[in-house]
Amino acid sequence: MTVTRADVDRASGRIAGYALRTPVIEVEPGRWLKLECLQHSGSFKVRGAFNRMLGATPPAAGIIAASGGNHGLAVAYAARRLGVRAEIFVPEVCAPVKIAGLRALGARVVVTGAIYQEALDASRKRAAETGAVDIHAYDQLDVAAGQGTLAAELLEQIPDLDTVVVAVGGGGLVAGVVAGLDGRAKVVAVEPERIPTLRAALDAGEPVRVGVSGVGADALGASTIGRLAYDTVAGHVTSVLVSDEAIIEARHALWHDHHVAAEHAGAAALAALRAGVYTPDEGERVAVIVCGSNTDPATL
Amino acid sequence: MTVTRADVDRASGRIAGYALRTPVIEVEPGRWLKLECLQHSGSFKVRGAFNRMLGATPPAAGIIAASGGNHGLAVAYAARRLGVRAEIFVPEVCAPVKIAGLRALGARVVVTGAIYQEALDASRKRAAETGAVDIHAYDQLDVAAGQGTLAAELLEQIPDLDTVVVAVGGGGLVAGVVAGLDGRAKVVAVEPERIPTLRAALDAGEPVRVGVSGVGADALGASTIGRLAYDTVAGHVTSVLVSDEAIIEARHALWHDHHVAAEHAGAAALAALRAGVYTPDEGERVAVIVCGSNTDPATL
Repeated sequence: MTVTRADVDRASGRIAGYALRTPVIEVEPGRWLKLECLQHSGSFKVRGAFNRMLGATPPAAGIIAASGGNHGLAVAYAARRLGVRAEIFVPEVCAPVKIAGLRALGARVVVTGAIYQEALDASRKRAAETGAVDIHAYDQLDVAAGQGTLAAELLEQIPDLDTVVVAVGGGGLVAGVVAGLDGRAKVVAVEPERIPTLRAALDAGEPVRVGVSGVGADALGASTIGRLAYDTVAGHVTSVLVSDEAIIEARHALWHDHHVAAEHAGAAALAALRAGVYTPDEGERVAVIVCGSNTDPATL
Repeated sequence: MTVTRADVDRASGRIAGYALRTPVIEVEPGRWLKLECLQHSGSFKVRGAFNRMLGATPPAAGIIAASGGNHGLAVAYAARRLGVRAEIFVPEVCAPVKIAGLRALGARVVVTGAIYQEALDASRKRAAETGAVDIHAYDQLDVAAGQGTLAAELLEQIPDLDTVVVAVGGGGLVAGVVAGLDGRAKVVAVEPERIPTLRAALDAGEPVRVGVSGVGADALGASTIGRLAYDTVAGHVTSVLVSDEAIIEARHALWHDHHVAAEHAGAAALAALRAGVYTPDEGERVAVIVCGSNTDPATL
């Protein structure tokens, strides 16, 4: 199964008025930043969360997700906005401040399991019991299609766009972007060197498990690219890797040069340009997605 | 003398391609934030700085300004971009980090005088000696007209805008906004209770000196509204005052609810809405200007 432009178009219709139409700024001629860091809940994840909820018509048991990070915040935000009951499962390592943030959005938080996979397993068991709609962080058609609405917006905002540079974790965003662009612009898929889920899958010819470490781990820390993402993007993206040092440098540059507060994952795409890992051709029109801002601003 | 829409139109033509066209986001139906905090140099001040420099054709001696704050940063940024020599005069109380920031932009920094007025006087003496073009922080036609380009943009970005809410310090921005809107939308002029330069002038029928204190002092800390601003806006704005507590609350809300990093002055306009000091009518379409982001993000 792959995500298609028709899936994205359906999502765009559903989430209009719920997700923010995030702005782009042209920081130099032919270089844009898509400020998805200003999105409700602080990341693109709310697009997929809204699309999944609005497409599924949740029962009284509401929705269930597993994530102490951006996905959890997005699901809790969207559930509150839609008046839907939300249960969010997080592993015991989840920081208390993140649990408090989820509770402040009205979610019921269940702390269980030593690692994310155990929290995810518990959430699925619970969903099977209650009938709640489970919302995966990336490996679900409506979730990835929702993220793709960002690309559909970009094509409206920037005429004759050549290239979109986007960070990859579990692959929901990059799959949505490939589907949303539908060949009208090329996609550069950027991963931290220390979490190369897509690169490893492309090398192996199928999703494989990788180690997870480094500054991108909290938001790009899937250990395997999603099957849906792999099938959608293989053969349709340029894969590049960036060092943690380059991500840190790009995050500081976003604040000091462009006054944009981003998390490390949100700066990974820009890092590919700044570090010269991806060098556009003369005249190439490039949009860089700044995908999240859930960060401690004291570290900027 | 007053600023007119024709002055603003001339400025828009001059600074196109130099100042950023800053985005707006619709945070709820009929409420927009104009993200001028993303502007080059971190505030709207660069619009006026570019307009003054591009209009004056500076001699080899370059330009001179007095300011350790947003105006100094904006002038230094614009001078570097245009390849113009810049001398910035700052008082001895200016924080070393601000002096370093100005020097990093290539400006020659002259530290002189116990207070701002002494630095300003010294800068004028120097300009008279060298023939450099002096750029005032607000009380100059090209400066205020440059700031007004923000309002011209707003009218293009938001159809049928009813109201613009804007913070007031020395009055360059509000004068430009009144001129740029030219009656097509009303203007709510927001000042900290502890620096009511415009309110005091409106009460007195002419610019008068006020005390300067509180969280807005670093960026809204003029002790008197400019004559040009007073003559341009008197009779054309609704004047409201906000408490420091309301400014602080609005600044936190900008970050936590909207993921926008702003300085206190940048949050003053929003504070007027959040604190209920200005209550829009049903259906009123309101744009709030978030005018600067030169802040320590650790304090968000």
